[in-house]
Amino acid sequence: MTESAPESEYPPISEQLDDIDAARTEGRRKMDWAAQHMPILEHVGEEFEADQPFEGERIGMAMHVEAKTAILVETLADGGAEVAVTGCNPLSTHDDVSAALDTHENITSYAKREVDDEEYYAAIEAVIGHEPTITVDDGMDLVAAIHEDYPELIDSIVGGCEETTTGVHRLRAMAEDGALEYPVFAVNDTPMKRLFDNVHGTGESSLASIAMTTNLSWAGKDVVVAGYGYCGKGVAKKAAGQNANVIVTEVEPRRALEAHMEGYDVMPMAEAAEVGDVFLTTTGNRDVIVREHFERMNDGVLLANAGHFDIEIDLEALDDLAADRYEARDGVEAYELDDGRRLNVIAEGRLVNLAAPVSLGHPVEVMDQSFGVQAACVRELVENGDEYEPGVHDVPDDLDREIAEIKLTADGVEFDSLSETQREYMGSWQHGT
Amino acid sequence: MTESAPESEYPPISEQLDDIDAARTEGRRKMDWAAQHMPILEHVGEEFEADQPFEGERIGMAMHVEAKTAILVETLADGGAEVAVTGCNPLSTHDDVSAALDTHENITSYAKREVDDEEYYAAIEAVIGHEPTITVDDGMDLVAAIHEDYPELIDSIVGGCEETTTGVHRLRAMAEDGALEYPVFAVNDTPMKRLFDNVHGTGESSLASIAMTTNLSWAGKDVVVAGYGYCGKGVAKKAAGQNANVIVTEVEPRRALEAHMEGYDVMPMAEAAEVGDVFLTTTGNRDVIVREHFERMNDGVLLANAGHFDIEIDLEALDDLAADRYEARDGVEAYELDDGRRLNVIAEGRLVNLAAPVSLGHPVEVMDQSFGVQAACVRELVENGDEYEPGVHDVPDDLDREIAEIKLTADGVEFDSLSETQREYMGSWQHGT
Amino acid sequence: MTESAPESEYPPISEQLDDIDAARTEGRRKMDWAAQHMPILEHVGEEFEADQPFEGERIGMAMHVEAKTAILVETLADGGAEVAVTGCNPLSTHDDVSAALDTHENITSYAKREVDDEEYYAAIEAVIGHEPTITVDDGMDLVAAIHEDYPELIDSIVGGCEETTTGVHRLRAMAEDGALEYPVFAVNDTPMKRLFDNVHGTGESSLASIAMTTNLSWAGKDVVVAGYGYCGKGVAKKAAGQNANVIVTEVEPRRALEAHMEGYDVMPMAEAAEVGDVFLTTTGNRDVIVREHFERMNDGVLLANAGHFDIEIDLEALDDLAADRYEARDGVEAYELDDGRRLNVIAEGRLVNLAAPVSLGHPVEVMDQSFGVQAACVRELVENGDEYEPGVHDVPDDLDREIAEIKLTADGVEFDSLSETQREYMGSWQHGT
Amino acid sequence: MTESAPESEYPPISEQLDDIDAARTEGRRKMDWAAQHMPILEHVGEEFEADQPFEGERIGMAMHVEAKTAILVETLADGGAEVAVTGCNPLSTHDDVSAALDTHENITSYAKREVDDEEYYAAIEAVIGHEPTITVDDGMDLVAAIHEDYPELIDSIVGGCEETTTGVHRLRAMAEDGALEYPVFAVNDTPMKRLFDNVHGTGESSLASIAMTTNLSWAGKDVVVAGYGYCGKGVAKKAAGQNANVIVTEVEPRRALEAHMEGYDVMPMAEAAEVGDVFLTTTGNRDVIVREHFERMNDGVLLANAGHFDIEIDLEALDDLAADRYEARDGVEAYELDDGRRLNVIAEGRLVNLAAPVSLGHPVEVMDQSFGVQAACVRELVENGDEYEPGVHDVPDDLDREIAEIKLTADGVEFDSLSETQREYMGSWQHGT
Repeated sequence: MTESAPESEYPPISEQLDDIDAARTEGRRKMDWAAQHMPILEHVGEEFEADQPFEGERIGMAMHVEAKTAILVETLADGGAEVAVTGCNPLSTHDDVSAALDTHENITSYAKREVDDEEYYAAIEAVIGHEPTITVDDGMDLVAAIHEDYPELIDSIVGGCEETTTGVHRLRAMAEDGALEYPVFAVNDTPMKRLFDNVHGTGESSLASIAMTTNLSWAGKDVVVAGYGYCGKGVAKKAAGQNANVIVTEVEPRRALEAHMEGYDVMPMAEAAEVGDVFLTTTGNRDVIVREHFERMNDGVLLANAGHFDIEIDLEALDDLAADRYEARDGVEAYELDDGRRLNVIAEGRLVNLAAPVSLGHPVEVMDQSFGVQAACVRELVENGDEYEPGVHDVPDDLDREIAEIKLTADGVEFDSLSETQREYMGSWQHGT
Repeated sequence: MTESAPESEYPPISEQLDDIDAARTEGRRKMDWAAQHMPILEHVGEEFEADQPFEGERIGMAMHVEAKTAILVETLADGGAEVAVTGCNPLSTHDDVSAALDTHENITSYAKREVDDEEYYAAIEAVIGHEPTITVDDGMDLVAAIHEDYPELIDSIVGGCEETTTGVHRLRAMAEDGALEYPVFAVNDTPMKRLFDNVHGTGESSLASIAMTTNLSWAGKDVVVAGYGYCGKGVAKKAAGQNANVIVTEVEPRRALEAHMEGYDVMPMAEAAEVGDVFLTTTGNRDVIVREHFERMNDGVLLANAGHFDIEIDLEALDDLAADRYEARDGVEAYELDDGRRLNVIAEGRLVNLAAPVSLGHPVEVMDQSFGVQAACVRELVENGDEYEPGVHDVPDDLDREIAEIKLTADGVEFDSLSETQREYMGSWQHGT
Repeated sequence: MTESAPESEYPPISEQLDDIDAARTEGRRKMDWAAQHMPILEHVGEEFEADQPFEGERIGMAMHVEAKTAILVETLADGGAEVAVTGCNPLSTHDDVSAALDTHENITSYAKREVDDEEYYAAIEAVIGHEPTITVDDGMDLVAAIHEDYPELIDSIVGGCEETTTGVHRLRAMAEDGALEYPVFAVNDTPMKRLFDNVHGTGESSLASIAMTTNLSWAGKDVVVAGYGYCGKGVAKKAAGQNANVIVTEVEPRRALEAHMEGYDVMPMAEAAEVGDVFLTTTGNRDVIVREHFERMNDGVLLANAGHFDIEIDLEALDDLAADRYEARDGVEAYELDDGRRLNVIAEGRLVNLAAPVSLGHPVEVMDQSFGVQAACVRELVENGDEYEPGVHDVPDDLDREIAEIKLTADGVEFDSLSETQREYMGSWQHGT
Repeated sequence: MTESAPESEYPPISEQLDDIDAARTEGRRKMDWAAQHMPILEHVGEEFEADQPFEGERIGMAMHVEAKTAILVETLADGGAEVAVTGCNPLSTHDDVSAALDTHENITSYAKREVDDEEYYAAIEAVIGHEPTITVDDGMDLVAAIHEDYPELIDSIVGGCEETTTGVHRLRAMAEDGALEYPVFAVNDTPMKRLFDNVHGTGESSLASIAMTTNLSWAGKDVVVAGYGYCGKGVAKKAAGQNANVIVTEVEPRRALEAHMEGYDVMPMAEAAEVGDVFLTTTGNRDVIVREHFERMNDGVLLANAGHFDIEIDLEALDDLAADRYEARDGVEAYELDDGRRLNVIAEGRLVNLAAPVSLGHPVEVMDQSFGVQAACVRELVENGDEYEPGVHDVPDDLDREIAEIKLTADGVEFDSLSETQREYMGSWQHGT
């Protein structure tokens, strides 16, 4: 240990729980289920276990510690790394999973649910106290804390990975200011992630969460999807696949045209407000559904957000407008207007596939894909980290490609490869003209 | 009261619960949510309230007493009937809803959850003690008890309604033996019910239940649907709509051909067993997935039933075959074979959209449709009951049609009507040949 | 020959064409293509050739004589029958195919294109002159002529088959009057025919015909489908599958509801007229699109009929309304209104998948299915004809089932069969209750 | 005229045709139909006619001269340009359309069908003889000829537009060699073009062309799509939308995974060859279907190309393999193998939506979109041409966006716009983190 690392006395989860054995058993059960459906990490893990690529590395992680993430943590630890992990959100940790992780000889887990601010940052310091050579963030907490408070550690850091859009955005801002002093992979931005996570993952889990929160069905419903980016495409496609009549609102004409050409109704929100049965925001912007829209809605509509922050639906304005407000059902807040119309907000306008009481977060397979890329990026840092300048880096194309291949193999899907002649032809295909 | 009616001392729910007020509040909250999304019953209820068609009638009901059914009970009571109701299954009653119902001045509810056999039948007797002039059954418990034990009551009974396939099936057998002594409408068999309940309702709720039980997604999964009747069509269609690759197994060649022409893969179960990721039985038959199939399945498959009884998947054989068996997750039992493969059975092979821990039963709109037909049938019995012979009767076509019209109107959907010329042309369209 | 049969001098096609050899070659080429894609008739034909079930029978046929029908004619002839065939419409015969048929030693073909009325009926008499023991009609011309003019022949007739809805309709009227004196199978009404022919066949071929007539695409178009019966469902489904936004108009509320639950927009034609880009009638009724609708339509709309007769779109009213009228394109008549709006009628409002210049009629596979049932029915008449009373008969369920099996086998699709236990369970499934 | 321009004596079409008046009438009829369905060019044309932006410009064009292109030519001429146009392919000109164009006072058309090489280049020289200030190419013939033979003209050229992938590819090669001396817009590469042209246009028109060439249907067919780029996605999507069972072959694992996640079967061509009914190549590569694949195919399969050149299916190898070869149908060549299996090649393996006898080329709406961008680019060159360096330029984002807006407006589709708050939030959305 260098002098600069924090000397933390914050205890790992095992020293914080009462019935640690029961927690470990339950945590392991959750992890086993996830592992059973994460063939990419299974494959990568077998390779890591055989090759021990992380021998001598210390990996610091700040992630949502639940079953799926735990499999990534374990996979890295099984590859020889010493891993210290904590949460990246005061509410998202599953203590039992954290406890199960902490039993691994290479892993120390500080993640605990419902910690206060002080504890939250103490746990981050505790992770940094392990003097990580690699950081893995979901929201750049570790990168930020290290740069601000422990810059002396940076020299021994090979690089990092960042999972979220928000984190990547802030890292890019840091990099532009010349303030980011080691290379970080923007795992969030890979093409595969968009397809898996945004289109299929968000689409399916948002709709299932709403159905299982409300006991309502989709067939014949007018479903208004605000925004036709990747998430919006996913929600629209899956809703149409449940026989909803999809209405899209957009501000970008080319996306609006794309939705129109797909066969969806496209109209302004002010008009959609009058006909929609369910409204799903996916824009990443604020004030997408506001007072003038609430005023036009029918009795009994559902309002949910599958975008990012809880500012897409203007709940403050809705509260102002409402004569009454009550919990209509677990996960459903009814706002009753003067004339008796009830507008039902699901999961307080927060991300519906994460925040509804029945929600389980992203599907396992989605995280397998994303964490497979994480694992490959960590390996890349160990093997070729010195080739990357400080700054934000796209995931190298061949890593992303490799993960796709592993997934296909795991799913039993074979595909073709280019013949020599074909490769040559593609390389210089003006031959044919 | 005639001498023949049972003199029951079985108490209504209000005398059985401790915190009756809290129960009533919660029950009412559940009912309010359902009512908000049952426009057909809302419309019918307004008519009934105005016309009081059931003035002087006593309706005996044995149904699953939960929020949706409660709205039907209330609708009938608001139409002037004196209603006595109990459960039709010892486990399906929501006590809070039962309590909320029992506050209605026209309703006495005996339904209580987790009653033993003696209590269950005592409650049925209590309902019969009200000397119903009309019975509404879900499984023909009332019809059976009256015919067996209180035949003297039959004279004053106008008729009945039966909700389930099973009930209708047994009533038909009774009728064939000449033993059914009053007319009963087979509400289960209407064309609308097949469409709503089987195709859309079962399809959507089965898939959402599985997704929210397992945290898995559908995209790219090989989903094997056993049986291509109405339920199978629904499950297949909705699974394809979530980007699953659907495989259908069938025993009837025309249904197999229909599935093939739809673009699905069709193959025998023995072959499907080797490639499927998820298996859903919808046949209504037994032994659809058996030992020889389990033996060929991949590690991690999901097995669920969306048909009828829990005999479609031969769990006994699976238990014999398994080296170990444990709860992998709430609602998921893992059967581990000798070679480590894990076959995961959802909801013990019982109806997955009802029996999984997260399940909410049929979607509200589906029950609205079905109960709308019930309500119309009860009115038909009161108005024209003497026109029906004892026996099982199809729901009159115009009632079914009327409910469809109400639903369309409620959803704001307008449609055309035939002009005089068109009606004439259709009546004698050989004109055109 | 009995005295009663007509003594016809009407010559077969071979004596009517100039370059008979070229015609035969071209006709055979067309037939070969059809045969290549008619696996059901291929299979049935092999059986017939081996068993010679029609030895000694004389089959009279009045059908659209083109490549697909020709394969049915040949299949019957190869099974040992002596076949005499003519057209069932003065315009639908392909002379080259007729010539190719006429070379078969068991076949005499009188079918010729563009015959006048006298010739048309002379050809029918010529067929009757062969004293058929079995008749196969597409529009009941043979049945009618025999009953009216040659009733003495009826005694030696085993039975008949009728292909079209219209024919069946008229036969039923005859039967009701007690005037139909031999049994006729209503081939048109089988469940398989509805699926293949109406849903898939009409749907696909109507849309492809319109696309290839107009050079327009479907994506993003508002396509109004009038009527949601089998044809309407097919057109709607296939249009949605090309990314059109489908709008359905209906007069029957349950069908309207079915369309609504499928996720389509449902509205009255008067409203649809204002938003539609393409209008397709499939109702089988008259006056579906009339003056008040034309008045509201946008410039450039397409109007086509995929129902039955050319009376679904009121072209007379449109002509009255139009200031000008001209051929905008082969198969497209533009009606230009006073204000310059152009309404484009495809194929004169006749069945668009048959009457557009590029149209090829029903897809080969559809006719294979339909003619497979025809062939099986003819065999049934020979084998068990005496079991059928005079009148119109549904195709026996097992024949329809058998054809489905043959098709599945031909397409390489295997399916399951019931075990003994399963069969028993289904037979008495109240066991489970 | 400068000395450097060619002095051509090659006559315009009007001097080459016999019945010029009939040709003009027919050409105009074709153009009218196209114009009726090209709302983007209609809108742009009205603007141009009012503003006369091309006053004083001379536009040289080498394009496929048929109805749709003709509307672009006319639109530019109506905007004040003097336009000289010829074909870009010796076979694609419609003489009647060329003649109709040539009647416009601002247009000289040299395009003629079936010209020999000498005439073809003479016509190009004739266009160059007009000393164009702007060039519009489909295959860079004008750019190439000017750079090679008339470099003195370059000084007065503002810039050019190129329509095709191939042309853009070659222009980029020129630019890399420093040989391209004026700016050229790569119209082909806009995102909108991929969506419209490749996904919807190619998908729909390829399938409709095959259906109307073969009289076959898609329902239940195993359709093998080679390549899952934009064209492949379109073909797969539209085939699935006709109830085909889609099988995708790919060489790029991420595209293979994308297809797998969509729910399609993915497998190597060697395996797909054994099960496919129809094969469509969309790879842009060569030797996609070769001898080893032909050897495994079933009797009666269809082979077609929707990619680019006619080298995706190795017809030479197929010819070697075949025992016989004949025209099975217009547009279908049957290759019969030794054992009697027939493999049917549509349109000689050339682009099936262009080269099949019934084909009409790209749908009108697709070309409207593409030509709308062309028109906007020409205007951009006139207005801001001096801002562009010599070389290949992407179409400016706002032009593409503008065309999308025009299309939406023409289709009656409204959409939202960002509020000030929203714009600000998006600009600095780390606010929310």
